[in-house]
Amino acid sequence: MTKKIAVLGAGSWGSILASVLVENGNQVMLWTNSEEQAKELNEKHTNEHYIHDYTYPKELITTLDLKEAVTGADFVLFAIPTKVIRPVAQQLLEVLKELSIKPILIHASKGLELGTHKRLSQVITEEIPEEYRSGMVVFSGPSHAEEVANKDITLITAASENLDNAHAVQKIFMNKYLRIYTNTDVIGVEVGGAFKNIIAIGAGILHGLKYGDDAKAALMTRGLAEISRLGVALGADPSTFMGLSGVGDLIVTCTSVHSRNWRCGNQLGEGKKLDDIIQNMGMVIEGINTCKAAYELGNQLNLTLPICHAMYDVLYNDANIPEEIEKLMTRPGKSEMEKYDER
Amino acid sequence: MTKKIAVLGAGSWGSILASVLVENGNQVMLWTNSEEQAKELNEKHTNEHYIHDYTYPKELITTLDLKEAVTGADFVLFAIPTKVIRPVAQQLLEVLKELSIKPILIHASKGLELGTHKRLSQVITEEIPEEYRSGMVVFSGPSHAEEVANKDITLITAASENLDNAHAVQKIFMNKYLRIYTNTDVIGVEVGGAFKNIIAIGAGILHGLKYGDDAKAALMTRGLAEISRLGVALGADPSTFMGLSGVGDLIVTCTSVHSRNWRCGNQLGEGKKLDDIIQNMGMVIEGINTCKAAYELGNQLNLTLPICHAMYDVLYNDANIPEEIEKLMTRPGKSEMEKYDER
Repeated sequence: MTKKIAVLGAGSWGSILASVLVENGNQVMLWTNSEEQAKELNEKHTNEHYIHDYTYPKELITTLDLKEAVTGADFVLFAIPTKVIRPVAQQLLEVLKELSIKPILIHASKGLELGTHKRLSQVITEEIPEEYRSGMVVFSGPSHAEEVANKDITLITAASENLDNAHAVQKIFMNKYLRIYTNTDVIGVEVGGAFKNIIAIGAGILHGLKYGDDAKAALMTRGLAEISRLGVALGADPSTFMGLSGVGDLIVTCTSVHSRNWRCGNQLGEGKKLDDIIQNMGMVIEGINTCKAAYELGNQLNLTLPICHAMYDVLYNDANIPEEIEKLMTRPGKSEMEKYDER
Repeated sequence: MTKKIAVLGAGSWGSILASVLVENGNQVMLWTNSEEQAKELNEKHTNEHYIHDYTYPKELITTLDLKEAVTGADFVLFAIPTKVIRPVAQQLLEVLKELSIKPILIHASKGLELGTHKRLSQVITEEIPEEYRSGMVVFSGPSHAEEVANKDITLITAASENLDNAHAVQKIFMNKYLRIYTNTDVIGVEVGGAFKNIIAIGAGILHGLKYGDDAKAALMTRGLAEISRLGVALGADPSTFMGLSGVGDLIVTCTSVHSRNWRCGNQLGEGKKLDDIIQNMGMVIEGINTCKAAYELGNQLNLTLPICHAMYDVLYNDANIPEEIEKLMTRPGKSEMEKYDER
């Protein structure tokens, strides 16, 4: 049966997911606040600033009007930057009240709310109480919008406390090149997606310093152990970190030269100053914020997170990188089994 | 206190580990059956065929005589090809009886015994009963001998049922560029090291077919789920697969163009015939054998291993690769939580 879906945000990820949903036979409305972008998408069926050389299906309609986008929606997908999740959720609540509908909410953003360190599904469900939604699903995994646009193969996790809602999301997205796995561990899926960026900066640093494959694999593995330790303390299931939103996304982000976080690290490793890197990048380097969140949460929860601490000292206290690496390497010998219970 | 260590096998990994052990202040004897190689190592302190441009410490002594190598040894490290583990263990047993010593045995090989699908520590301990050894430790992780030779950073797991023995091995190897983590899950560590090669062939295939980063990360993640499922059925602890010998080694092998297994897959993806690839390679492609082992063990244990099955059909039944990929992608939707209990 055809589903009606509103996609909020017409960046690369939101617009491509909207395109896939149309292709899968759904009725989709894409919401943006850029008049120019809406015109380009509706008239030329392109979104050049975000995805080059891609033609969107003619059936995809883009609107500036949130109420129009959401009218009759079975699903509302958030694909907007972390920092606007809360205000857009507030806007959406008013529309849902007005329309008297209870869609399943999905979000496909990665990160934590700045300052509060809250997960994004927490932010959305704080703003939109249960009586105005049929469920909350997190959509996360190793995915480049460009590769989905190319109909390359991509696998993603749909996580919800209510497995029926995860199944509903699996059903609307799945096709021959996009395969969805369900999971009930919302906390683990969101934590994995957020904290991998810290490790991606670290992997970039090692590359900039000309370290080899062993060092990068070691950093990713021990970084994953720290992400799991933090995630488990926040309520996640450790096995989630072995999945697509955990190690899968970590691998893509740490091995792709396209990742902003990796590139930031690479330049740090080459000896550039963080302030200059941030200024030249001109875009948010998410891992810098999540590193602070990991550092503060780790301290609150009394966890041992040596890589996160070293990264924090490099990013916030101008620590000497080779000295930090030596400190990590000369810690007393440890057991791999200290993953979850070392405090 | 200085330890006396015999290293059996002077290939790239054995000779470099012997060199590290000398550098760490131990007394080391390296055993090889090649007269020419022993002469080169003892006179020129090089091992050009295996490691280019590397000078071994003068204190390292290479011998053709197993009894000389093992005399007084606190540790005996096996660093020899899988297929000679059993005959060398038989030879070693005779020497241990003659010398009346009980060293800690270590092995640093990856794979399973051909035909029996036994783990290598099983093979060694079958041949050398408990009264002739003080313990059995498995040494495995994401490691290129060349990077250890460069004093790059490498992290490795030392696994033993007896944690004291793992600690003893950790102590002799650890230095500023080589860091050892202990683990008690011998089965998990050996299973991870062996089966990653199947997934490495698959990652090479995807590269040869020009798939992107999403597809490779997806294969590695779902491949890890199958390795874990098989490992757990064989008695492993699932968390081991999140460690250095699991995901760490998988990452290195699947992302390195130096891996023979990856190169074999890459050529398959480009359309070459397996027989030609094997002939041109002139060396064993371990993953082809371990794929058969995984396939047969999976059937015996009644496990669902879709990637291993597809790889088996490609390697042994000349299956069409794009069709196998489509079959994998069009399976019914699954849950990530089916990792360990799906039979």
